Amino acid sequence: MRTLIKDGTVVTATDTVSADVWIDGDTVVGVCHPSLRKTFAAEREIDATGKLVLPGGVDVHTHLDMPFMGTSSRDDFQTGTIAAAHGGTTCLVDFAIQGRGQSLRAGLDAWHAKAEGKAAIDYGFHMIMADVNPQSLAEMKTLAAEGVTSYKLFTAYPGALYSDDGQILRAMQQAAELGALVSLHAENGIAINVLIEQAVARGEVAPRFHAATRPEISEAEATHRALCLAEIAGAPVYIVHLTASRALEQIVAFRDRGLSVYAETCPQYLFCCTDDIAKPDFEGAKYVCSPPMRPKAMQADLWRGLRTGHVQVVATDHCPFDFKGQKDMGREVFTKIPNGMPAIETRLHLLWDGGVREGRITPSRFVDIVATAPAKLFGLYPKKGTVAVGSDADLVVWDPERKQSLRARDLHMRVDYSPYEGRTTQGAPTHVLSRGNVIVENGKFLGKAGAGRYLRRAAFRAL
Amino acid sequence: MRTLIKDGTVVTATDTVSADVWIDGDTVVGVCHPSLRKTFAAEREIDATGKLVLPGGVDVHTHLDMPFMGTSSRDDFQTGTIAAAHGGTTCLVDFAIQGRGQSLRAGLDAWHAKAEGKAAIDYGFHMIMADVNPQSLAEMKTLAAEGVTSYKLFTAYPGALYSDDGQILRAMQQAAELGALVSLHAENGIAINVLIEQAVARGEVAPRFHAATRPEISEAEATHRALCLAEIAGAPVYIVHLTASRALEQIVAFRDRGLSVYAETCPQYLFCCTDDIAKPDFEGAKYVCSPPMRPKAMQADLWRGLRTGHVQVVATDHCPFDFKGQKDMGREVFTKIPNGMPAIETRLHLLWDGGVREGRITPSRFVDIVATAPAKLFGLYPKKGTVAVGSDADLVVWDPERKQSLRARDLHMRVDYSPYEGRTTQGAPTHVLSRGNVIVENGKFLGKAGAGRYLRRAAFRAL
Amino acid sequence: MRTLIKDGTVVTATDTVSADVWIDGDTVVGVCHPSLRKTFAAEREIDATGKLVLPGGVDVHTHLDMPFMGTSSRDDFQTGTIAAAHGGTTCLVDFAIQGRGQSLRAGLDAWHAKAEGKAAIDYGFHMIMADVNPQSLAEMKTLAAEGVTSYKLFTAYPGALYSDDGQILRAMQQAAELGALVSLHAENGIAINVLIEQAVARGEVAPRFHAATRPEISEAEATHRALCLAEIAGAPVYIVHLTASRALEQIVAFRDRGLSVYAETCPQYLFCCTDDIAKPDFEGAKYVCSPPMRPKAMQADLWRGLRTGHVQVVATDHCPFDFKGQKDMGREVFTKIPNGMPAIETRLHLLWDGGVREGRITPSRFVDIVATAPAKLFGLYPKKGTVAVGSDADLVVWDPERKQSLRARDLHMRVDYSPYEGRTTQGAPTHVLSRGNVIVENGKFLGKAGAGRYLRRAAFRAL
Amino acid sequence: MRTLIKDGTVVTATDTVSADVWIDGDTVVGVCHPSLRKTFAAEREIDATGKLVLPGGVDVHTHLDMPFMGTSSRDDFQTGTIAAAHGGTTCLVDFAIQGRGQSLRAGLDAWHAKAEGKAAIDYGFHMIMADVNPQSLAEMKTLAAEGVTSYKLFTAYPGALYSDDGQILRAMQQAAELGALVSLHAENGIAINVLIEQAVARGEVAPRFHAATRPEISEAEATHRALCLAEIAGAPVYIVHLTASRALEQIVAFRDRGLSVYAETCPQYLFCCTDDIAKPDFEGAKYVCSPPMRPKAMQADLWRGLRTGHVQVVATDHCPFDFKGQKDMGREVFTKIPNGMPAIETRLHLLWDGGVREGRITPSRFVDIVATAPAKLFGLYPKKGTVAVGSDADLVVWDPERKQSLRARDLHMRVDYSPYEGRTTQGAPTHVLSRGNVIVENGKFLGKAGAGRYLRRAAFRAL
Repeated sequence: MRTLIKDGTVVTATDTVSADVWIDGDTVVGVCHPSLRKTFAAEREIDATGKLVLPGGVDVHTHLDMPFMGTSSRDDFQTGTIAAAHGGTTCLVDFAIQGRGQSLRAGLDAWHAKAEGKAAIDYGFHMIMADVNPQSLAEMKTLAAEGVTSYKLFTAYPGALYSDDGQILRAMQQAAELGALVSLHAENGIAINVLIEQAVARGEVAPRFHAATRPEISEAEATHRALCLAEIAGAPVYIVHLTASRALEQIVAFRDRGLSVYAETCPQYLFCCTDDIAKPDFEGAKYVCSPPMRPKAMQADLWRGLRTGHVQVVATDHCPFDFKGQKDMGREVFTKIPNGMPAIETRLHLLWDGGVREGRITPSRFVDIVATAPAKLFGLYPKKGTVAVGSDADLVVWDPERKQSLRARDLHMRVDYSPYEGRTTQGAPTHVLSRGNVIVENGKFLGKAGAGRYLRRAAFRAL
Repeated sequence: MRTLIKDGTVVTATDTVSADVWIDGDTVVGVCHPSLRKTFAAEREIDATGKLVLPGGVDVHTHLDMPFMGTSSRDDFQTGTIAAAHGGTTCLVDFAIQGRGQSLRAGLDAWHAKAEGKAAIDYGFHMIMADVNPQSLAEMKTLAAEGVTSYKLFTAYPGALYSDDGQILRAMQQAAELGALVSLHAENGIAINVLIEQAVARGEVAPRFHAATRPEISEAEATHRALCLAEIAGAPVYIVHLTASRALEQIVAFRDRGLSVYAETCPQYLFCCTDDIAKPDFEGAKYVCSPPMRPKAMQADLWRGLRTGHVQVVATDHCPFDFKGQKDMGREVFTKIPNGMPAIETRLHLLWDGGVREGRITPSRFVDIVATAPAKLFGLYPKKGTVAVGSDADLVVWDPERKQSLRARDLHMRVDYSPYEGRTTQGAPTHVLSRGNVIVENGKFLGKAGAGRYLRRAAFRAL
Repeated sequence: MRTLIKDGTVVTATDTVSADVWIDGDTVVGVCHPSLRKTFAAEREIDATGKLVLPGGVDVHTHLDMPFMGTSSRDDFQTGTIAAAHGGTTCLVDFAIQGRGQSLRAGLDAWHAKAEGKAAIDYGFHMIMADVNPQSLAEMKTLAAEGVTSYKLFTAYPGALYSDDGQILRAMQQAAELGALVSLHAENGIAINVLIEQAVARGEVAPRFHAATRPEISEAEATHRALCLAEIAGAPVYIVHLTASRALEQIVAFRDRGLSVYAETCPQYLFCCTDDIAKPDFEGAKYVCSPPMRPKAMQADLWRGLRTGHVQVVATDHCPFDFKGQKDMGREVFTKIPNGMPAIETRLHLLWDGGVREGRITPSRFVDIVATAPAKLFGLYPKKGTVAVGSDADLVVWDPERKQSLRARDLHMRVDYSPYEGRTTQGAPTHVLSRGNVIVENGKFLGKAGAGRYLRRAAFRAL
Repeated sequence: MRTLIKDGTVVTATDTVSADVWIDGDTVVGVCHPSLRKTFAAEREIDATGKLVLPGGVDVHTHLDMPFMGTSSRDDFQTGTIAAAHGGTTCLVDFAIQGRGQSLRAGLDAWHAKAEGKAAIDYGFHMIMADVNPQSLAEMKTLAAEGVTSYKLFTAYPGALYSDDGQILRAMQQAAELGALVSLHAENGIAINVLIEQAVARGEVAPRFHAATRPEISEAEATHRALCLAEIAGAPVYIVHLTASRALEQIVAFRDRGLSVYAETCPQYLFCCTDDIAKPDFEGAKYVCSPPMRPKAMQADLWRGLRTGHVQVVATDHCPFDFKGQKDMGREVFTKIPNGMPAIETRLHLLWDGGVREGRITPSRFVDIVATAPAKLFGLYPKKGTVAVGSDADLVVWDPERKQSLRARDLHMRVDYSPYEGRTTQGAPTHVLSRGNVIVENGKFLGKAGAGRYLRRAAFRAL
């Protein structure tokens, strides 16, 4: 079937063009002047007059159906991907997890099983390596060949997901060999555990002490360490969910020296802060995630990082837990609050409203941050992440005037609260296409669970 | 006339796409999959199989037919623009000069007269302000309305082109008001004149003392000063021909703080160095330009700046003087050597060969540096600087295998030497199109003098 | 006459020792354990039990009897040096001024005449060069031989004290040759004049606009410029009255690279701020000086600079003008307010109270900042600036418990207001000795005008 | 007994004074002008005409009689302290070692036993904590009361001396509480072990691979980590044997922010380099120590650090192993070469010759680096580290003209080689006094083993 999106303004990471977009089946086949319409024919037309035509959002940091702290993130691959689609995201990369003492293969298979038949949009997997050893290092080669070309390690969570510096170095060396990218959750978990133990002993158990015991410096430290290990390994590195100004300074310093160093932040760090986690009546628990909320003043530094290109990606770290029944497991002590926040649906709304409309970033930079750069970094480009001939027709018709309530009840994520309850943003999708199919139209889901396909991702290439 | 460039790989600053480019008259009307060919028809086809389709080069720093030091740069708008076209450059912005005690208008008119009927490619004018005063400040408004939206000032050349810091500040304030961009030749000319006087008094008169008397620090100093004045004025600023590592450090520091600060370097600073200016038998005079040649080690810093995006543009500062009859005016003392080098034709060859082929920059970054970024910064985009629907069909079919000798006799610039005599580069245009017309094909000029049009440039917008 | 200061704690820039200090005539001849008292004999004893014995303060930045803006600073060499003595300062270096078109000699002679027969403490002269030309450059050699081994230049005050960058460079080169030190008033006076003209045109005439038109960046710019010129000249440089955080960053950067770069700040920048200059009813005029008051937050940066050693000296820039009859010349417009504040008497009180007592600096660092470092930098050491055998017995017995009111009427400076009216500090001298003579005892002046001697200062040596 | 050192030039960290030094028993009782001699009487006179009188050297980093890698450092407390005395060092702080699974007490007692009856000069102990746990943390309090106010931890040597970041943090917190100072051997031992394993697997077994497997970045990383942990703990920190330029950059950055961060380097890093460890015929083994030799270019950075005060101390890390019988244990593979070099005797010779004579540092800075700063940082001041009334008469009469051969056979350390074989330095002690007793005179040892006393050190105070 041939589809025409006509009279819109096509925005890529570099260009803004008044043009029609022609789709044949699942692929973009032309970006053309309206004068060419006479020679073509379309079975279906979408009128994008006054609207933008953007590449679908690419969310490279999600945790769907993830067991954590004795419970599981609420959204599975069905509810989570449908919510993502509502928000204009047409592709995600979720984190498969290797269990301690288990193979990467076992973890990957488990996540394939979670996604299959459920995902409404295309998806790939990063692999969390919780047990770096000769076997799992060898397995990286097999998995990379299957399109798992990124591996996440943790300097946080000792005893669980934590890897020591030797394990990180070895994984980076192997990744460099394979053309894979290592990403890091960079907080000094060992030091943090000391601070947590001491805080709890002092009776500091409210949610806000979750933030107090994970200080900015512990993130700056681990970030610098990750960058140094990457430099030793001769490997690129990607820091997930960067939040701290001083961690950003490390990124800037290494980037300015020309190293392949990348950073992602998340909407919650751009729009929430320590004021939120300090809310009374345990409301702060809604904002418990790791790294934690930071002082409001750091938001400006993150925005500057996005503007200057030192931060390349905004992903979600979507990992929702209900306030009732999950977050409240930690009423006695913050250490028992499941870490994570819902974000998969509202990323583009927030970034457009708070970023483009506030004049902090241009529309092209917006596209780069939410789609192009993550697609390029994680081997999805050019299939995903841009509007170009030959690319998948994962597209969003974006109405800059359309408003969206961020109340929990107006959203589609399976979670009983919204961190932005009461906030309305401006700028929202009218149509969302996944490989040529309209899966959301004016807020109505038209796709189907299981239509999403697994994406074999290509090797890492520097931006 | 409809033209089809088929089966090439279209490269923009962000995308690399196998696609046909359709041109209608002077405009790109479609970037399409070959499958759409059946519905279209073209009167002319260019086979780009195995080749790249790039936006034509945009050279925002040329001095054609410029009186300087008692002589004139050799290339006029006819010979210079034809040479540019041979090198894949389809648009340039030359510097009109206000005379001391004269109006901007007079200077601009003079340059219009130089260009009219001669230019083979499209062109615009920056205005060099040699006399900032209430009248010339007021004139900026008129000229900006005529498309002169950039103004160059000098901290160098006291008594000639030099402006004091108050004049610079006022011009920046006015530019910020008008949406114009001030660019700076940033060397501390007053300090340099002291060093020159002292060197000459010591009998240090050979060409290499031209470099010795314009030390790196004098450029770092003036660069910092220009950035500070821009920050006071709340204006963007563009540093032309940046050469010194420490000047680059200043750029990096201000950019990392989020300011609208831009830098250009030139091929001669990437490929030549103080070793060249020290060549015996007065050969060094061929490399006398300002800022001067720097130690070879600084080249790596400039390349890093280009890779990290802290340097956005490579332009030429094309200002050729014959070795015989012009450069040799300074055989007695370097101060009489006309400052300038030929570069307008070889920019893309050198950048591709030394940049892309050497793995220092990607093809997309190449396109950005030689075309997209300069077009955006100087109000030429989207007409110039990209391959997109609605843009002028200023295009280059680039053969990455084609070789080009850089001997003077194999080039088209009107000058009796080449700084790169004996060097052969790989990567060269097979076809160069100006607004849809093929003006160079396989090394043969098919265009005509006078076909180039004056470009009214738009207001400055931040990258 | 032999004098014994017994049972005190002698503090130098490095040591803190319980010891007697023995003085013979005008010289310290022993620092000894009390057990040696039996073998010595003293004609006069000062009991320093519970007190500190410090070197007398060295104030290297004063403007006594200085014509400025159509009036003169109120304190002459008699009233000023007596006030200094009351505050524990036993030596100062005042600024002799070369008139435009005049010789250095004429300026120096004029200042000798002002001081002779009046000064109650020893003094030297810096020379302000208002007219750098071949003659005055040559004169530097003669004057240096007479002990004038420091020269001040201005990037501020165009048309008056201003030197251009070539003049500054030449003076620095000559100074380096002679072993002299160039100090700089580092504000970009040309840019500031533009801002002033524009502010006044907008009707911004109140005292606070004095600060607004001399922004932090204009100081950072001129500081960087001065440091660059010094680096070109291969000369050390001393930045007087540094106030701006970003200027300090420049100092830090050059110092960390190992250059001989020094900075001084003044009490008014550590204890007053833009809140003061914004006081209503023209009270702000009391705080008009240049560089101007800065935001309160910058004080912490200056204190950190003093602690880390990046700022070596606190001097006063003492230049008092009466509120009535002088400051009020500028009621119509801030440009007519004489720039300057009284400070010569209260420097040690403020630094001890706000520095040592607040835990910001140690007693040894206090001694270094107010006495040792300035004496060393300006060729007064070891005669002045320390407590050591062979040094002049310029000593202060300092009672850390003694309180001092900073009301104008409780002080001795000839000026009708105090910037610190109502403030009481703790820590004050009980005895002040000038070359062995007690000139102040418990607040009573015992010295005499004319007893102070001109000091031929030695060549500059790096700290 | 009263001793007079007459007619010398007394040098402290701040002052240089022509004066007599009077000693009564073990204490300095006067620094006096020669004119006072008539009133005093001395039983013994040392003529210091033409010589300097310096405080005895304080070496805060020695490993005497230390078991390591299956052998022991050759010098015990007798031979080592006598060698130290020959070199002008009159006080040292050696490292007592807690065994894994043992108490601090047991380690300290063992070291007391090693020293007692043997040491020829006064000594203290740092405590190496190899097992940070609640018991050892509690013991810190007891030991601090006994004068062990500094504790060393390692990020190197996993499985042996290594502590994890939580242990380091806890030790720092406890130290801050007790007024103790934590010092760090800052190399990332875990990453290094990976590199070593890989190098050995590749057959890279020669001594130079010891350096190659401990890259600069691994030191920069661990240094930054240590500084961050100290900042979290609110504790000061002292980095032992800093060698890498990028580690120094970290020190500079934290110091410039005002933190209590200190660094020590050693003569071998100032005078030896990777060229030495690459010497053929296994000669490189003589230069195997950790951190390893660095490229020669880094020496200039360390010297600059010493000059600017960012590096405060030069200590020796004296840990000698014979070439025959010890170093050659590693002929098969560098991992078996005992790490360490002889240095205790030659520190002052090298620093004077290569530092003061070469114009890199002043005599006062020399005194500060080798005596005053280490004494202050480690609670030995004012008994040790200066020439002042009340201080121990640990003094050196230093002849700046005297030459010293650094051949092994001309030195007194118990080791069969010298890293500086063939080098002769200028500047050497003629007399070395320990608490008033001449223990070395013109190269002859006059002291006795066992005369050295244990020093209870005071709490840490910031410089």
